[in-house]
Parts: sequence; C-alpha cells; structure tokens
Amino acid sequence: MPYYIGDVITDYNKLVIRTPEAFGKTGIKVLMKTRVVDIDAAKGEVVLADGSRLPYDILTLATGARAVRLDIPGASLEGVFVLRDLTDALRIKAHLNAKDCRRAVIIGGGYIGMEMSEALRNLNMEAMVLDILPRPVVRWDEEFVAPILEELEKNGVRFQGETTPLAIEKGDGKLLLKTDRGDLPADVILMAVGVVKNTDLAKAAGVALGDSGAVKVDARQRTSREGIYAVGDCCEVFHRVAKHWVYMPLGDVANKQGRVAGQNIGGAETEFPGVVGAQSFKVFGLEVGAVGLNEKEAAQYGFTPVSAFIQGLPVGRPMAKGEKLLVKLTADKATGRLLGAQCLGGKGAVQRIFALSVALWNGMTVDEVGYLDLPYAPPFGGAWDAIHVAAQELARSL
Amino acid sequence: MPYYIGDVITDYNKLVIRTPEAFGKTGIKVLMKTRVVDIDAAKGEVVLADGSRLPYDILTLATGARAVRLDIPGASLEGVFVLRDLTDALRIKAHLNAKDCRRAVIIGGGYIGMEMSEALRNLNMEAMVLDILPRPVVRWDEEFVAPILEELEKNGVRFQGETTPLAIEKGDGKLLLKTDRGDLPADVILMAVGVVKNTDLAKAAGVALGDSGAVKVDARQRTSREGIYAVGDCCEVFHRVAKHWVYMPLGDVANKQGRVAGQNIGGAETEFPGVVGAQSFKVFGLEVGAVGLNEKEAAQYGFTPVSAFIQGLPVGRPMAKGEKLLVKLTADKATGRLLGAQCLGGKGAVQRIFALSVALWNGMTVDEVGYLDLPYAPPFGGAWDAIHVAAQELARSL
Repeated sequence: MPYYIGDVITDYNKLVIRTPEAFGKTGIKVLMKTRVVDIDAAKGEVVLADGSRLPYDILTLATGARAVRLDIPGASLEGVFVLRDLTDALRIKAHLNAKDCRRAVIIGGGYIGMEMSEALRNLNMEAMVLDILPRPVVRWDEEFVAPILEELEKNGVRFQGETTPLAIEKGDGKLLLKTDRGDLPADVILMAVGVVKNTDLAKAAGVALGDSGAVKVDARQRTSREGIYAVGDCCEVFHRVAKHWVYMPLGDVANKQGRVAGQNIGGAETEFPGVVGAQSFKVFGLEVGAVGLNEKEAAQYGFTPVSAFIQGLPVGRPMAKGEKLLVKLTADKATGRLLGAQCLGGKGAVQRIFALSVALWNGMTVDEVGYLDLPYAPPFGGAWDAIHVAAQELARSL
Repeated sequence: MPYYIGDVITDYNKLVIRTPEAFGKTGIKVLMKTRVVDIDAAKGEVVLADGSRLPYDILTLATGARAVRLDIPGASLEGVFVLRDLTDALRIKAHLNAKDCRRAVIIGGGYIGMEMSEALRNLNMEAMVLDILPRPVVRWDEEFVAPILEELEKNGVRFQGETTPLAIEKGDGKLLLKTDRGDLPADVILMAVGVVKNTDLAKAAGVALGDSGAVKVDARQRTSREGIYAVGDCCEVFHRVAKHWVYMPLGDVANKQGRVAGQNIGGAETEFPGVVGAQSFKVFGLEVGAVGLNEKEAAQYGFTPVSAFIQGLPVGRPMAKGEKLLVKLTADKATGRLLGAQCLGGKGAVQRIFALSVALWNGMTVDEVGYLDLPYAPPFGGAWDAIHVAAQELARSL
C-alpha cells in the first residue's frame, strides 16, 4: 500500500491547503501532521514521532528545503516571515489583512525579494529591499543591474545594498529592524535569503550526499541505497552545460524529478535528462531571464568564457517605440559552444531565454545560434533577432 | 568594382526609399532605375535595357518574387493594390490619405491578409477578407480556425470563404468587386494571394532551377553556374525537418542567405545551415505561430505523422484569468522525432514557437521535448509548460 506522509497537502493550482481526501480514490494512504524522525534503512522502516514504525519496500525522499530565517535577535517575532510554501503565503496574507500594514522591509534581493516587492507595492504598501551585497539578483551580471534598480525606483521600491541586519525589535505595535546602516521601522519583515536543504532524514538513512550537500541521485532519481529514491529540493540535478551534478532547487525541476521517480518505481526505466539552469522572474514591467552559466560559473567549471552584450529590440525596428531588450551571451572559447545567456526587457526577454534554453540543451555552437530559424514577424522581433545579433557579435570574439 | 543594380533602395528600418548616396562610402557603384534584361553567362556580362553590357566576375541574383495580381478584368484599376514591398505600402498609404476610403476588401486570407485587416481596421475602415478556400491561414490546422475567426469578428472584420473574385468595376468613385457570391463595393481592394518567384534572369543565365521552380543553390548560395550566386525569394532553401530543398520566401531567411553569399564571395566558406519553417503573425490580440511540418506536409515527405492538440495556459494556473494557449505538436511515429508545431494564444504562443524552432533545428524527440528545461516562472507559464504537456500527450501516441 502506498503511503504519503507529510505536514500538509498544498494545492498550488487552487492556492488552498487540501485535506487527505484529496487523495480520495487513489488508494494512497495519507498520514498528515505526521513526522518521520528516523529511517531504519537496514530494516526498511521509517520511524514516526510517536515511536511507531512503518515498513517500506520503496521509499521516496521528497523532504525539500526550508527557507533560511536569519539567526538574529527578534527573528521569530510576530510580523517577521519567510516565504517558502503556501502555508507561509497564507500566514503573510492573514497578517497583512489583520494589521494595518503600511511598511514592508524585505531582507534579500534575490528574485523572491524582487517578486515580493512588487506584490507588496500592489497592496499599496511601502516596500524596501535590503541586501548584504551591493546589488540585487547576483545571478545576473552587472549590465542588468541598472535597469532593474531603475524599475524598482520607478515603482517606489527602495533598494539598499551593503546592509547587514543585526536585530529586530518590537515597539508600540511596530517592528524595528536594526542594521549596520541604521534602524528601519516596519509593519512586516520578510526574510528572503535562500534555502537550506532538508537532508537529515537522508543522512539518517545512510544515503550519500553529493558535493553540493544535497542528496546524490542518478538519472533515475535513485539514491546510493537500494529502494530509496530522492526528488525535488533535497537532491541534486545534472547540469547539462556544466556537466556536473548541482543543487538547483526550482519548482519545475522538482516536478520533473517526481515524474521520473514515479515512472521508475512503476517499472518504466525513464531517465531524467538534466537541466540547463533556465530561470526567469518578473518585476513590475520587466522580464528577466537567464540560462546556463555566467562567466564566473563557467570559469569554475573549467571553461574559457567569452561574452558579448547587446542592446537589441523585442520588435522589428520600424515598430520600435523605445523598447529595449538586453542580451548577454557567454561561450567557451575552446569549443565555440554557447555556455549561457541572460536577457532583460519590457517584453520578449523570456521568449529569447525559451529559445536559448533549447540551444544550450543541445550544445549548440555560437555560430549556429547566429543562423537559427526563428518565427520572425515584426511584432515579435527583427528579421535578425536579438539572439542572432548577440551570437554574431560573440562569434567575432571566438 | 562592386555594382548594385536595382529599381529602388528601400530602407525598411526607416520606412523610406533611399537615394544611391545611401551606399556612400562603401565604394559600391549603384545603378538605380536600371533594368537588367539578359545575362550572358558565357561572356560573364549582364545586358541592360539600353543595350549596354556590364562585365562581372561574380554575380548575385537577388531578383526576389513579385506579388500575384489576379488575372481578372479591372485588376489594374486605381485603388486596387498588391502589397509586396515598401513602394507598394507607400502607394496604398497615399491612396488612403488622398481618397476618403471607408471600405476595404482584402482578397486572400493568408497572414498578409490577416495583418492588413488589422492595419485597415486601425484606420477605422471597414475591412472584409475573402478567400477562395473555406477558411483563412491554411498553414494552420483546423483546430486554430475558430479562434482566428472569432478574433476577426470581435474586431469587426468579416471573413467570407469559398468566394471567387470575377472582376472589378469602377462606378461613381467607388470600386465594385464582382464575385461568384455577389458584388462587394469597396474604396480600396488589396490582393494578398501569394507571390511568383522572379526567375527569368536566372533562366537567361542558364542557371538550374529546383523542383519548386525557384533557383537551385547549395549551402553556400552558389547556383549551378560558377560565379553566380542566388539569395532571397528567387531561390530555394534547405528545410532541415523535411530534408528537402523547398521554396520559402520569408524576409528573415533572405537576410541570412544574403549574409552567407556575401561571406563566401568575400572568401569565408560559410554554409547556410537551413531552415525549419518558423513563422508567425499577429492579428489583433492573437499571436499565431508555426514551425516545421503539419501532418499533410509530413506525409508528403514520407513521414508517418501523429499529432496531439492541447489547450494549455501561457501563465501558471493560479495566475490564469481565462487565457488560452493552443498547442499542436506533430511527430514521426517511426523515429519519435518532433516534426512540427503550431501555437495560438493571446500571449505566449510565439514564445513557445521560439523554443520549438530550436528543438526542431536539433532534431529532438518528443520524449526529450517533454523534459526540456525552460525558464519557469508563473507570469510566463506553468511548472509544466504547455510545451511539456503537449509533448507528453503526444508521447502517449508514439
């Protein structure tokens, strides 16, 4: 009999917490609010918090990751949140509805911080984003920082870099975030400073971890121990460009891993072909996307990266009304292969990352990318698309 | 000394006709309003209309194609237009500005007809589109017809299929289009019924034509005669999916062929890697795109096509507000390879065709397309993108 053991069942499509009846006629036995405290892999049993044991033939670890809550005084005060799952989101929403929240401080300028600054501005709150680093979204190179900061400013979000949070205090109904650059009053504080993988149970089961510290798996999502699979944000994934197993906790990757594990458990020998590190976010009127490796990452993996950066157009030139589409491509000088891409624009940036993700997936060279056949029409790009222009520019450095 | 011989120099970026000075300091000698009437390939000379001859070492045929003007009485009356180049567009614009045009009839429901119906509606004119076939844009399959017709109707464009134009007459300042389904009054009539390749000069030069009737070239844009190149809408192009040379007169393809020819003439041995038949158009609020082969074409090229059609979403489900994204994928049952894709939606359709064009370029299988790593974020699609959903659906038929 298959068991699902977990804390809650979140339905992200309907944005609600579901009851075990959601599994209704599937024949799956659901144990909610049930904590697994140990795995006895030798005996093939999971140990529950009440001391009882459940035997298994096949076990799938989908323990995920948890949002980091900064280890500073006051980090657990009411009104201080992390945003990891639907429960967190519902908690934040309840707080905003119950209190007269007018000022939000977001700690962390990653893309969760960016997206949340927009969400909070849309509720007419003041929003400020802090980061310990000088600039937001470090996955993207310097060329992309100015337009993002401009977009934040235009929409009333203040970004303050090089700021270290020291403590949170409560006074007269408000929170006070103390930093090395002064005190910031807030009605709500969101910590968006990354995740930690939940690998305690994997360790308890004696399952091997990879270099990243996440659970080591193979292309069929099998761990080092027979009968134990791992999927999602607790395990590694193969990066097709880096040619290394990496840690990349993203929702779409987790979905694919779950499918592959399920198929293998069910008897189909499906292999997960890996990822190319495709990602994107929207902040107000900007689309921002990236895929593959940037120069720094490429150098770490032993490539000899060269890059080209262009300001292109998301539409044909005769239709242009001041739009910009920034494209940066990085390639390996030794092989001429594309290694990575970054795009930003009011529109069309994600469209290009869609195409470039498939180019990276297939290990295409920059020369070939410069001649790709793309569905040209002036509302969607030029006869030479921004992708072609950037690739041809980059080819000159190869 | 390089010569450029032509009728006019069109600058599509600025939408103006340029003078020969546009070539300014390039050292290219420009002969405008100059007609080449013959090519004496044995002697290596072009013969001009005035009987004079110009010798060449290398000749590039870029004679293009011309818009078909229906062979019916009145087809050349004032107010009856084709739309092929900038000169045509400027002529149409002048006519619309000079006359009080209120009613337009477009003959031909291809994508030029679709785009022009929108352009004319934007000028507050009545617009009607006729086609001899029962439905518009036959490059797209039946599943895509209803939403296109709905979009036309919603925007006040009447489409009438199965209608054969018989003659055009002039009376009291207006045109009258006589058809087998009645007479239609109009202030302006646009014929958008395709193109004919201009191959007379190629034939005069003794250059071989391909099965399509367009000039046969190789991957370096060389024709069958040494020293003669051909590029653009007068010549064929290699279709990477069909594995055949085909006729595909599209502006972006022409641009690429020109670049390849230029590089080869200049001494670099560049090869044009071919096309996958990517195309798109916008009509009012709809994006419509296609790439590769549809089932009918696939069967003609000897494949065993199977297809899947899905109604997906261009955004994550929790963000959806009634948007639709229609995706049809076609694959070869024998190899499992993707053969073609068609998409339609209010947004995101072209984004998917961008990605699927690169998938087709690389000969990917449907199984692999179902696991592509794409830049997921809810404003741009689901964790399982519409591409994945369609590919997984199709994989079940393979």
